[in-house]
Amino acid sequence: MGQNLFFTNDVMAAIGQLEAQGGHNLTVWIADVNTARLIAPAPPHLITIPDGDTHKSLETVCQVWNEMERLGATRHSLVINLGGGMVCDLGGFAAATFKRGVRFINVPTTLLGAVDAAVGGKTGFNYNGLKNEIGAFAPASDVIISTRYLDTLPQQEMKSGFAEVLKHGMLSERSEFLRLLSHDFNAPIQHDNLLERLRRSVQVKVDIVARDPNELGERKALNLGHTAGHAFESLAMKRCKPVPHGYAVAWGLVSEAVLSHLLLRFPSEDVHRLGEFVRDNYRGFPFTCDNYDELLTLMRHDKKSRDGEITCTLLTAIGDYRIDQSVTPADVTAALDILRDLLGV
Amino acid sequence: MGQNLFFTNDVMAAIGQLEAQGGHNLTVWIADVNTARLIAPAPPHLITIPDGDTHKSLETVCQVWNEMERLGATRHSLVINLGGGMVCDLGGFAAATFKRGVRFINVPTTLLGAVDAAVGGKTGFNYNGLKNEIGAFAPASDVIISTRYLDTLPQQEMKSGFAEVLKHGMLSERSEFLRLLSHDFNAPIQHDNLLERLRRSVQVKVDIVARDPNELGERKALNLGHTAGHAFESLAMKRCKPVPHGYAVAWGLVSEAVLSHLLLRFPSEDVHRLGEFVRDNYRGFPFTCDNYDELLTLMRHDKKSRDGEITCTLLTAIGDYRIDQSVTPADVTAALDILRDLLGV
Repeated sequence: MGQNLFFTNDVMAAIGQLEAQGGHNLTVWIADVNTARLIAPAPPHLITIPDGDTHKSLETVCQVWNEMERLGATRHSLVINLGGGMVCDLGGFAAATFKRGVRFINVPTTLLGAVDAAVGGKTGFNYNGLKNEIGAFAPASDVIISTRYLDTLPQQEMKSGFAEVLKHGMLSERSEFLRLLSHDFNAPIQHDNLLERLRRSVQVKVDIVARDPNELGERKALNLGHTAGHAFESLAMKRCKPVPHGYAVAWGLVSEAVLSHLLLRFPSEDVHRLGEFVRDNYRGFPFTCDNYDELLTLMRHDKKSRDGEITCTLLTAIGDYRIDQSVTPADVTAALDILRDLLGV
Repeated sequence: MGQNLFFTNDVMAAIGQLEAQGGHNLTVWIADVNTARLIAPAPPHLITIPDGDTHKSLETVCQVWNEMERLGATRHSLVINLGGGMVCDLGGFAAATFKRGVRFINVPTTLLGAVDAAVGGKTGFNYNGLKNEIGAFAPASDVIISTRYLDTLPQQEMKSGFAEVLKHGMLSERSEFLRLLSHDFNAPIQHDNLLERLRRSVQVKVDIVARDPNELGERKALNLGHTAGHAFESLAMKRCKPVPHGYAVAWGLVSEAVLSHLLLRFPSEDVHRLGEFVRDNYRGFPFTCDNYDELLTLMRHDKKSRDGEITCTLLTAIGDYRIDQSVTPADVTAALDILRDLLGV
């Protein structure tokens, strides 16, 4: 894999160092219409793409390829992706396939981008209405993680990204998990502390990915909260009331913590602490027992499931995960009852 | 890299074995309109693409992605590319990017495909008029190399592919190089002997690629004959009289053998043997000293050159190569004079 990670709020200095060491003939920046404004002074070779998931398309990939050619990029150039998950995913794919691969650096500007998309080598774009349908496992050579762009991030996006931080906490150590549960979204950002939380969070992902870069086994640990989470996300989409990805993940984490308690004796104390934090910060997803069948069907169609079985990553305790756990419809139903109670929906 | 190579003329048995061991939910074949006829009985999931370099395009890649989706291919499916270099390159790219990568097998049906495109992990397609402009380093999990499709291959295509065999011979051992120079294109194919030649030829490439999969250094050895070769190919294209790639490589090999003699004391005896074989089988490329400047300009623009210098892979002797050799315009001019003499043009 070989990704170098930098945790710093002096982003431009870090980029300057990487540019200097490389012997590149050209630096091309890729940003979206919002993040392009974050670079001052404006770099000479900047590709600005439209923002939003609807533009995470082949059309935008072609725009990037065409502009890279126009700018004279070669295999010896350097690409810098500055933006959220969409810019890192799409810019990474464009760079990884241009002349069979140009070195690229990710500079995530959102919390979700920092702890999820920017690290781990998954690149791609949406195709034929399917999310991340076309892509490549192609790691950025370097990732610069900072909190400097987060002061102006809307609270909803902070919370959405924080769900993945919470997930990594649940996959690592109880002390870190408890520290995360004391996070206050209404207080101003304490940059040093948050950067340290990100360092630990990203390290959890990096360690797991290093052992399984192509998602053949252990990497499924990172799917914690996502089997149920994707079902909530899809149900909300079908109701035409989409919810932020991280909110669905937060509810999914509680669901799967409950399942872990029912099936693997995950401590009920930690279920309750997590449930409280999620209820207080993410509210609850509004659903009744009338939605159980639909949720079960959605979980069966999760892209990681095989043969129509529902499989999750579960925990015996914080930090002790078990991938590929089969759960029955009765288990899920019992867990959803408890979840509604915990979240007060 | 981890590519498994099979040298066998019982292709279907080899494919059957690979299918059986895999635990795949679906096998998708990709072939062009000509090679689709080689599969009997017709497989249930076959994607037929148009043939020829003009269709090595993003449009055809999208056709493959769309049909893979329609057929229900998943990350657990298997793709088999049956065809020449175009099918292996384009089908490999489509498979490597569909859902971030589906396992694929190459079954080359041409000599050029067998010794060049199918092995080594380069995939891609032409874009904006540039050859293989977009692509990925993505090795086929398995490559099945046979001579069974070569009996009906036009002699011109045999010769074109044989130039790459010759190149590998020049990078390996003198005994193999001399054996290759005794090849008679007019005699019927001796399958056992030719399969053994292919085994040795492919092994040369595999050994070099294994030491440098992403073409950072040593892999440039495989560029032998191609700096001059590409210049001849491009000049022919500009004259609207295109020549087969391998013919240009054959002339390029002689040119760079001459340069090797001038700069690195490569034995003149081997220059003459090679020159004779190429003259007898590939004729000569018609050019005069009036074309020298144009050829020099084309060599300076080779995609592997940097800063407008002309660089080649040269030899001190058969099997002893030196990458990144700078050559001056005067060296090239002297070599082109000798080349015209050797080839009688």
